[in-house]
Amino acid sequence: MADVGVVGPSSLVGGEILEVLAERAFPTSTLRFFGSMHTAGGWVERAGKEVRIDLARADSFNDLDVVFFAAGPTVAGEFAPAAAEAGATVVDCSSRFRLDPDVPLVVPEVNPEMVPHPRVPGILASPSATAVGLAVVLGPLAAAAGLVRVVVSTYQGAAGGGRRLVHRFGRDTVALLNAQGEGRSAGSLAFDCLPRVGTVEPGGATTHELHVVEETRKVLGEPELALSITAVRVPTFFGYGASIHLDTARPLTAAEATEVLRTARGVIVHDEAADLFPTPAGVAGSDATHVGRVRDDPGAPNGLALWIALDSVRKGGAVNAVQIAEIAIRER
Amino acid sequence: MADVGVVGPSSLVGGEILEVLAERAFPTSTLRFFGSMHTAGGWVERAGKEVRIDLARADSFNDLDVVFFAAGPTVAGEFAPAAAEAGATVVDCSSRFRLDPDVPLVVPEVNPEMVPHPRVPGILASPSATAVGLAVVLGPLAAAAGLVRVVVSTYQGAAGGGRRLVHRFGRDTVALLNAQGEGRSAGSLAFDCLPRVGTVEPGGATTHELHVVEETRKVLGEPELALSITAVRVPTFFGYGASIHLDTARPLTAAEATEVLRTARGVIVHDEAADLFPTPAGVAGSDATHVGRVRDDPGAPNGLALWIALDSVRKGGAVNAVQIAEIAIRER
Repeated sequence: MADVGVVGPSSLVGGEILEVLAERAFPTSTLRFFGSMHTAGGWVERAGKEVRIDLARADSFNDLDVVFFAAGPTVAGEFAPAAAEAGATVVDCSSRFRLDPDVPLVVPEVNPEMVPHPRVPGILASPSATAVGLAVVLGPLAAAAGLVRVVVSTYQGAAGGGRRLVHRFGRDTVALLNAQGEGRSAGSLAFDCLPRVGTVEPGGATTHELHVVEETRKVLGEPELALSITAVRVPTFFGYGASIHLDTARPLTAAEATEVLRTARGVIVHDEAADLFPTPAGVAGSDATHVGRVRDDPGAPNGLALWIALDSVRKGGAVNAVQIAEIAIRER
Repeated sequence: MADVGVVGPSSLVGGEILEVLAERAFPTSTLRFFGSMHTAGGWVERAGKEVRIDLARADSFNDLDVVFFAAGPTVAGEFAPAAAEAGATVVDCSSRFRLDPDVPLVVPEVNPEMVPHPRVPGILASPSATAVGLAVVLGPLAAAAGLVRVVVSTYQGAAGGGRRLVHRFGRDTVALLNAQGEGRSAGSLAFDCLPRVGTVEPGGATTHELHVVEETRKVLGEPELALSITAVRVPTFFGYGASIHLDTARPLTAAEATEVLRTARGVIVHDEAADLFPTPAGVAGSDATHVGRVRDDPGAPNGLALWIALDSVRKGGAVNAVQIAEIAIRER
């Protein structure tokens, strides 16, 4: 049994972590909640009881075995090292430590061996939803035939931008449908696609795109992988989609790739022949990464094309984090 | 001056053709409207007057110089040859004749020389919105540096599926926001992305994807171009977006590509350095193909990435068709 803390329990991913801990019967003896100045003092419902959110301090984590950080990178940077020093296994869902060379970045279906076992104090990072989905699907394909090049375009819903973006998107959508106010506000996602997630860096890629490339390389253990990505926010609430075109080193037909993915951990393949395909909203609530439209891509000698959809808050966030913690506390 | 007919004036593209003819002062002496059994007998407003839609017959087109077909492929297949035989220049916006080797497929910025001049009777085809946008942008880049490979993922709004899909999408969106009925209906675009446009063909690509590849090759005059595409319907009403990753034959930096596109016909480049980018809803009503996020793609030796947005009903439909007719009737 573990004494567990959750920092940021009122965020989208934080709230989902509470659900996932209960669903998966994570062996919890005590469960405590922490927040920043903005959220501390609030309450979270847990098993029918209201539980208070305490203000996170450097000494908050002394008696805890596992601490989930589901707050932003600033809060993680401030408190995750203290929690680790106090003896906890920290699982951080923010971007803060993902690319830190001293911190394992883990997708349990792909690189579970990166989690120290038996449990030792320290920080473990959970990747962005994009990198989780890519790693779950590209890992088995890389093992089967090697990857020469991967080109990805994403279809990311409002949830990836947190609770505030979900609320703003819903409000803007209703306002547009009612033709209220001055019409469309600048940068609104309502009935529009925004081809920029994060800020644009010198060279033209966004922070998010650069991070996803590095995170995926780190999880796959392929630091030189030729991975190109355009990340686009689309007007959906939950769920996440990506179009993937890839070239393998050795020939791998669509039929062979489908067989590889059918037996891959954490993957559900939808039957192309039966004209079935997964959609972002359709897979909401699922813990799997769903694959559809697997087909040969005649644009390259060993070309493959496919589409993936996953729930960015669950497998792309909370589920992956809880899976990491499960490995850490597992009995030998 | 020309005697003009429009078949399908009550479709999205048909209605827009009427607007564009007026805006561009297309030299029209008479303007007549034709429809199928479904739409004939209705009325269309034109310069403040209601004009009747006549039933299209094989002998409807005898006195017309130019006939726009903005109905489906079935109507085009039934009547466009008769109109051409009767002496008209036919501009068809449907998929019916786009890949017919005897029919020019024209994007005026790219291959205006395919339009016979002076005007001769015959059928000319206007490509799908996807192929129009790709041709306008890829044409100048191909001329500057050659194209080795192009990978495209699309973000297509409801308008591309016609008036019926626009209505259904709006209705489903309102119903979901109001939480009416049984919730999400199968295949609904409301707050979801559908990674299948058209029907899936043997091999896994959709009819639409296969057509777009062949149309783009035909317009560019590059029948062997390695062009891969995943077409996805997204929950927007109007406007069209595409993420493009391409490899050029000769080195072409993002800065050089930007300069090429700045002077290209029908293109507006949004300034990456100033963090400006075009969105599908943001370019609604525009006749240009808008380009943003032009950047080097380090995933390939001569890699480039960019994003395009255009109004699929205007430049992707009505504007392109009227431009074709303008070339056909132009005085020598």
